[in-house]
Amino acid sequence: MGNHEVTRLLVNYKTLEEFKNFREFGAAELSMKDDLEANIIENDSESPFYGIYFGKKLVARMSLYKIEAKFDRYFDPPQDYLELWKLEVLEPYRKKGYGKALVDFAKSFNLPIKTNARQGSGEFWSHMGFEPVTYQPARDRGESPYVWYPAGVQEQQENTTPVNVESNQEL
Amino acid sequence: MGNHEVTRLLVNYKTLEEFKNFREFGAAELSMKDDLEANIIENDSESPFYGIYFGKKLVARMSLYKIEAKFDRYFDPPQDYLELWKLEVLEPYRKKGYGKALVDFAKSFNLPIKTNARQGSGEFWSHMGFEPVTYQPARDRGESPYVWYPAGVQEQQENTTPVNVESNQEL
Repeated sequence: MGNHEVTRLLVNYKTLEEFKNFREFGAAELSMKDDLEANIIENDSESPFYGIYFGKKLVARMSLYKIEAKFDRYFDPPQDYLELWKLEVLEPYRKKGYGKALVDFAKSFNLPIKTNARQGSGEFWSHMGFEPVTYQPARDRGESPYVWYPAGVQEQQENTTPVNVESNQEL
Repeated sequence: MGNHEVTRLLVNYKTLEEFKNFREFGAAELSMKDDLEANIIENDSESPFYGIYFGKKLVARMSLYKIEAKFDRYFDPPQDYLELWKLEVLEPYRKKGYGKALVDFAKSFNLPIKTNARQGSGEFWSHMGFEPVTYQPARDRGESPYVWYPAGVQEQQENTTPVNVESNQEL
């Protein structure tokens, strides 16, 4: 099974090079590159990404971000929670527990977690103890949100935080 | 080239059956099915989806949603804008202008538009006159936002609407 130690990834050119092996390479990665080139962020500063190395190779990663309670539209009572995205394990390293190790790491903060389940990944998330939420178009905008509730936390009902509710006006 | 007329899709079982041909089938579609089955929404009521039929077959679609100005974190001055997602043309019907016809329809409201560009679609969006925005992790959360500015509208700088700014706290 190898070593499944989760480490916080550093912002540097080596990490960026590793990221090119992952399918999801977008604005977050390009922004990191721009910031490094323009010296806007320091080399080796901490990124919002966590990963697992197999030897010297990055084989799994995810991004994890704490959202403040006042912006919480998913959990009751409203509270700080983690948004998890870009969970991905490189093809030859799948089905070896790397994805679970990353999710378990996220759970270890004992905060609620919200993710957007990619097409066909619902079974994985259910297996990880996540549940789909009631779809709210204005909030979810085409996402398929899956959430993990620590003890004592439940789904937030619509409109309990009116400050963040968006309109569904006719066009 | 066929007929490129854009129509607002109706919520009914025929539309749901057509949706199964598209790759992106998630919480929005399942929610529509649940709501129909539980009679929560009326059969043939208007959906947030727009599409193009070739004969009787739905060959392209998108979802379009108006977001209120007070939640605008992308445009300056802050204003009502459209969020566009799930733009998809069925494989055999690509490169025939269906995608452009849908985007042109969205532009016809003359409101700013924001979308999340899927992996590898940046060139398409640039061709449509969209531009990437400066990536803000707390706002964009792993998305690759592309926007379209009508005349007189520009990119919103960070923190001009503090009510909606989320925290980037260390975990």
